[in-house]
Amino acid sequence: MNKPVHPLIPADRVNGTDVCNEAGDKLGKIEDVAIDKVSGEVAYAILSFGGVLGFGEKYHPVPWRLLTYDADRRAYVVPLDKAAIEEAPTIEGGELSGWNDAGSREAIFGYYGRYGVGPYWI
Amino acid sequence: MNKPVHPLIPADRVNGTDVCNEAGDKLGKIEDVAIDKVSGEVAYAILSFGGVLGFGEKYHPVPWRLLTYDADRRAYVVPLDKAAIEEAPTIEGGELSGWNDAGSREAIFGYYGRYGVGPYWI
Repeated sequence: MNKPVHPLIPADRVNGTDVCNEAGDKLGKIEDVAIDKVSGEVAYAILSFGGVLGFGEKYHPVPWRLLTYDADRRAYVVPLDKAAIEEAPTIEGGELSGWNDAGSREAIFGYYGRYGVGPYWI
Repeated sequence: MNKPVHPLIPADRVNGTDVCNEAGDKLGKIEDVAIDKVSGEVAYAILSFGGVLGFGEKYHPVPWRLLTYDADRRAYVVPLDKAAIEEAPTIEGGELSGWNDAGSREAIFGYYGRYGVGPYWI
């Protein structure tokens, strides 16, 4: 039975988890995950940055493939520094779905392509 | 820009959505989705059946690939009748994660294999 291990995690447990960089700086937390209805793949983690929830808050959709879970830190680690996340594409809080037109996708993956992550839809 | 459309849905919006069969019988609702940490793919929808939440409640992990969203019904449709879902493998409410050992996976995909859905981890 030497099958690869495929640990599962419920989305409810992903949401709310901290996200930090490799230096240990906290960058935000996972507000939700966005699922591609066609493939069933998690396409993005939607990061929030604390502060007051509500109208006008910005979220950063980060390609899921950039995240690695670190059990010791109890956080997801991304290869991004604070400046990189601050400059990254954002979506408005009011549009956690419905924003994934071709232009948005290309902006997001154009930005994160430098970190070696390709489009999830190819 | 004739790219395929890849609509996204936030996990928070998936959770709580009704699940019915092709005849329109309501089978349950989605309690949560279970994500494969390795691939980032949604592996299972965890179905619940109403009733009292708490110790001892049973959940049915159904392969995500069996679900199709029906916008008119505002529900996911599965090719299962009520008897098929009642006889399907269950997990205990207290173990929404941690149950995906090789034996469980094989029981679940052994059961649902008749509906033409293969293991998500291959």
